[in-house]
Amino acid sequence: MKIGFIGLGIMGRPMALNLLKGGHQVSVWARRAESMQPLLDAGASGAASPAEVARGQELVISMVADAPDVAEVMRGVASAGTAGLVAVDMSTIAPAAAKAIHAELAAAGVDFVDAPVSGGEVGAIAGTLSIMAGGSDAAFARAEPAFACMGKNIVHVGGPGAGQVTKAANQIVTGMGVLAVAEAMAFASKNGVDRAKVREALLGGFAYSKILENHGQRMLDRNFKPGFKSWMHEKDLNIVMQTAHELGLCLPGSAATAQMFNAMVGSGLGEEDSIAVLKLLESLSGQA
Amino acid sequence: MKIGFIGLGIMGRPMALNLLKGGHQVSVWARRAESMQPLLDAGASGAASPAEVARGQELVISMVADAPDVAEVMRGVASAGTAGLVAVDMSTIAPAAAKAIHAELAAAGVDFVDAPVSGGEVGAIAGTLSIMAGGSDAAFARAEPAFACMGKNIVHVGGPGAGQVTKAANQIVTGMGVLAVAEAMAFASKNGVDRAKVREALLGGFAYSKILENHGQRMLDRNFKPGFKSWMHEKDLNIVMQTAHELGLCLPGSAATAQMFNAMVGSGLGEEDSIAVLKLLESLSGQA
Repeated sequence: MKIGFIGLGIMGRPMALNLLKGGHQVSVWARRAESMQPLLDAGASGAASPAEVARGQELVISMVADAPDVAEVMRGVASAGTAGLVAVDMSTIAPAAAKAIHAELAAAGVDFVDAPVSGGEVGAIAGTLSIMAGGSDAAFARAEPAFACMGKNIVHVGGPGAGQVTKAANQIVTGMGVLAVAEAMAFASKNGVDRAKVREALLGGFAYSKILENHGQRMLDRNFKPGFKSWMHEKDLNIVMQTAHELGLCLPGSAATAQMFNAMVGSGLGEEDSIAVLKLLESLSGQA
Repeated sequence: MKIGFIGLGIMGRPMALNLLKGGHQVSVWARRAESMQPLLDAGASGAASPAEVARGQELVISMVADAPDVAEVMRGVASAGTAGLVAVDMSTIAPAAAKAIHAELAAAGVDFVDAPVSGGEVGAIAGTLSIMAGGSDAAFARAEPAFACMGKNIVHVGGPGAGQVTKAANQIVTGMGVLAVAEAMAFASKNGVDRAKVREALLGGFAYSKILENHGQRMLDRNFKPGFKSWMHEKDLNIVMQTAHELGLCLPGSAATAQMFNAMVGSGLGEEDSIAVLKLLESLSGQA
């Protein structure tokens, strides 16, 4: 398939490389020209703008930082006037922003899919991302062969915005999950009990989670290297809280968790993995 | 082994029956005499008091409601004057209360083990409880053949109180886990997205937990039958918060979760399963 790809950062670069490996014809654009070089070396062609990267394509994919960036590059994509184009954004942005972009592109004849991912840089490189997609059946069908090169757990959740809603739900469960394991560990050691034994006991019962198993082990190893940076989880939980505000939705566990991630950014832990919330809890109770 | 068993409620009755099935000689006592009948029918002998049930035994086990009950029956057990007796309490009480009982029994020559369980009535009947034990190596070794009849994931976590600390850590992770999945589901449907599809998408990634899989499915089925009653989870989270208070420990996620379980008891959901926290979230945001 002829695919345009916009945004070649930590996530976008390996995702675009996996499209090339999958045999697709890929044209790329990135704000910083030097980001394009590894893709050009691997056989992609380069474009001078979002409009140019979208010209004559079947599919355009963006992986950028935030909602204003998505809106801006997608305006460029729409201006290319490519008939029957499907545009997919795989960044994590607010559901409301995704719906607004969908409406704007629909008016320009472009069918838009919001398809955020989870799995991080490791999953992007391995092509094992979870992909949560919202949009029309026809647009999802067009994007599916590209998704198959980048991910393995690919779910078409619903209409416009449904992918971002699912990603936000994912960040609720993983954010609270990381905080829960960190609180359990801080509780154990403040009581003088071996954290490793507590984790072992909990893994065998209903407390089992991938987070207890993997992130819990990294907490024991005090390996706070990202993985998934705290400031990015903070940004995602801010999307959750803004959406809850707009809808009149009461989410007390997410709110407490969002506050802790705010405090991580505020106390200089933003560049560390989200499991560094354990260090914050320790510093708040004399265990640091 | 000659075992005395105190407390024959929903949990204690099947646990004592499993000791009999395991070939142990079991003597029982319960506050309400009629609770003893099923055990007598199954081959246990009956006693008239905690002191009598402890006389001449190698091991005494209690499974009662709360810390004052444990302290009271264990005082009776100690008064029996059985040389070399090991006493095990499998109720869920505060770590500080378990340590105090340990010290009191040690002074009377009884070696005490705190060994709370998780797995609920289903696990008690099937003999598949998780057992988290705190106490001396010698006392744990004495109790181990009895534990093997009642559970499958049996961990000797540490010294006196370590079992209750581990159980409290378990209730932090499971309580926040249930609230996280409920908030994710309330978020999805308030945004007009299919909860079942969201759960499916999340199960394939780092959000995976036994709670998302099992309790999440029961939320979709709106099956709020306990399982594990809300008021019991509220009681356990109260132990967590009291212990945090005593130690100067900051647990914001547990605190938010404890408040929600308080609200469940206050709003008449105490007898329903802890997953009914979903109903509370729905009622707070116009989804009821």
